[in-house]
Amino acid sequence: MSYQKELNTSQRILMGPGPSDVHPRVLKAMATPLIGHLDPEFVTVMDDIKAMAQLAFQTQNHLTFVVSAPGSAGMETCLVNLLEPGDEALICIHGVFGGRMADIAERCGAKVSRVEAPWGEPIDPEQVKRALENSRPKLVAIVHAETSTGVLQPLEEIGRMAKDAGALFVVDAVTSYCGAEVKVDEWGIDAIYSGTQKCLSAPPGLSPVSFSERAVEALEQRRTKVQSWFLDLSLVKSYWAGAKRAYHHTAPVSSMFALREAYRLVLEEGLENRFARHRRNHELLKTELEAMGFEFLVKPGYRLPMLNAVVIPPGVDDAATRKQLLDGYNIEIGGGLGKFAGKIWRIGLMGQSSTANHVHMLSSALREMLKA
Amino acid sequence: MSYQKELNTSQRILMGPGPSDVHPRVLKAMATPLIGHLDPEFVTVMDDIKAMAQLAFQTQNHLTFVVSAPGSAGMETCLVNLLEPGDEALICIHGVFGGRMADIAERCGAKVSRVEAPWGEPIDPEQVKRALENSRPKLVAIVHAETSTGVLQPLEEIGRMAKDAGALFVVDAVTSYCGAEVKVDEWGIDAIYSGTQKCLSAPPGLSPVSFSERAVEALEQRRTKVQSWFLDLSLVKSYWAGAKRAYHHTAPVSSMFALREAYRLVLEEGLENRFARHRRNHELLKTELEAMGFEFLVKPGYRLPMLNAVVIPPGVDDAATRKQLLDGYNIEIGGGLGKFAGKIWRIGLMGQSSTANHVHMLSSALREMLKA
Repeated sequence: MSYQKELNTSQRILMGPGPSDVHPRVLKAMATPLIGHLDPEFVTVMDDIKAMAQLAFQTQNHLTFVVSAPGSAGMETCLVNLLEPGDEALICIHGVFGGRMADIAERCGAKVSRVEAPWGEPIDPEQVKRALENSRPKLVAIVHAETSTGVLQPLEEIGRMAKDAGALFVVDAVTSYCGAEVKVDEWGIDAIYSGTQKCLSAPPGLSPVSFSERAVEALEQRRTKVQSWFLDLSLVKSYWAGAKRAYHHTAPVSSMFALREAYRLVLEEGLENRFARHRRNHELLKTELEAMGFEFLVKPGYRLPMLNAVVIPPGVDDAATRKQLLDGYNIEIGGGLGKFAGKIWRIGLMGQSSTANHVHMLSSALREMLKA
Repeated sequence: MSYQKELNTSQRILMGPGPSDVHPRVLKAMATPLIGHLDPEFVTVMDDIKAMAQLAFQTQNHLTFVVSAPGSAGMETCLVNLLEPGDEALICIHGVFGGRMADIAERCGAKVSRVEAPWGEPIDPEQVKRALENSRPKLVAIVHAETSTGVLQPLEEIGRMAKDAGALFVVDAVTSYCGAEVKVDEWGIDAIYSGTQKCLSAPPGLSPVSFSERAVEALEQRRTKVQSWFLDLSLVKSYWAGAKRAYHHTAPVSSMFALREAYRLVLEEGLENRFARHRRNHELLKTELEAMGFEFLVKPGYRLPMLNAVVIPPGVDDAATRKQLLDGYNIEIGGGLGKFAGKIWRIGLMGQSSTANHVHMLSSALREMLKA
């Protein structure tokens, strides 16, 4: 049986939609022997992480913490806490993850109305404006960086519309967080969730989240219990933010050690420098790939710097080429999701994977393989 | 700010209710550079883990996998998938975690009836028998190792009663798994969840689970969507067990590397040897503590070998003593939960923390501190 052998993985170059490459300092911190999840030293680790999460979200929100599960559980945390049966939710959908938000909102018993854009395009604020003329939703939810299409969605205008309509503004920043501007307070975001395995370059499994005062008021005014015990913020917040840290669940201690170190790397580099690096390597990839004849899916001005959606050229076999990249060069890139399966590649330049060397490795390998 | 400094934790001896000490091989495996969560090599890691989880659960259940979140999310996974609004659930409560199951079942919209035993005692099968005379629940749920009280609950008789009543038998094995017998198939368990940070001695954050064919049939006969998208087995199982591994969420790659190694250590030792070691060190602790005048909360025959509930002697200050143990000796033990707060200590001898050396360190420290 293969489990009888020691773990022996290939040394991959991670250029898919996450996880991204992780800095050795993060791996080293993660391998620190454990301490208890209620140890005063662990409480300090939690406080450190909260402070750094606030800086990276550019927020003062007191209720900023890390869900002990991956980004999709962060998504569910935001929606199950803010929605009750019968509430109205306006969900903007321009890819897989907007669709997932609508699915979860419906499982909360919410009445969901949808604003949709063709995959590969951003949502037009005018659409949201029209939708808000005919409804009074409790929240408007949208994906900032749609990982399935590579679209960077401008948020400020839609955030203002949501606020003017008296709705909470909920944002998915799983892929943009720590790789592009995400200004929670300035943009009027009331609830936001992210992941650790993208531009933060920590291992997957955790989801940083933040809630505004308006969101906290909505939580306090709930008429019903949150349908998930595990994600119920009224319980979780006494562990993360209570004067006395009350036991809720056992926090993933090692993953938190890793996350702390990943945040330290983000702050040492500086947010602006980090965002500039992501833009710079995106430009380099663009130059390299366009020279080989590749086309980007998304129109200029709306492209994610950390997740590049490129159209698979005619005659190129999707699965075979990605297998050859993985087997021959140890490079992982992502295939298309949903209706884009077989049609696009998703090339991640996230966190530690956003370097000129990564771009050069991939473009040289593709050139060699495709004789381009 | 404290986050500006490198992580610098004390070298703790973990003898609380989890996490337990982790073997260096597990920490080393966890620090392996990441691979993608859909990489063929990661699929092999998942298959390895599934095979070893089955062996440790003593089950052939095809639907055996690991929830990407801590044990309480494993609990929620079992209940939200098996219960629909209006279903009846019979929950046995003899501590905090039985109470948590009832709370979650109610959040699923189930009609919950309770069988309760005083904290520190097991549930009497006669109580379950009587309860089943007056109801036809869809499931009967019970905690095998009640971490809040130190009680080991016999399961076989109650499992037979549940089966005879046509109910699914749901078991919490968070603390017993890999430290005492848990015979899923032989005992007729239909759904079971565990944790990784107890007798498995992996870092916290994951929950091994297993579902019988009867449970899978119940899943397939649901009339409504599972209220949690993240925990919906109809989606998760295509990632874990589908012929083609369909993306659901991003699995916590590093934690899975660690878990694989922790399972390997379990199987290298052998289940029977491991259970015997846990019993042996429990006996040693008992001898040492009783010589100092300590009394166990639970009557003989129902004591957990891996979690020892002892009554705090009169005149001993709970918080001050545990602080002194932590600050002076780096030893963590657990305080009481809920109605046992301030009344008992919970001393864990779990996995790597179940050694004679651990017992000696603790008993010597207590002797020195309490002049006993």
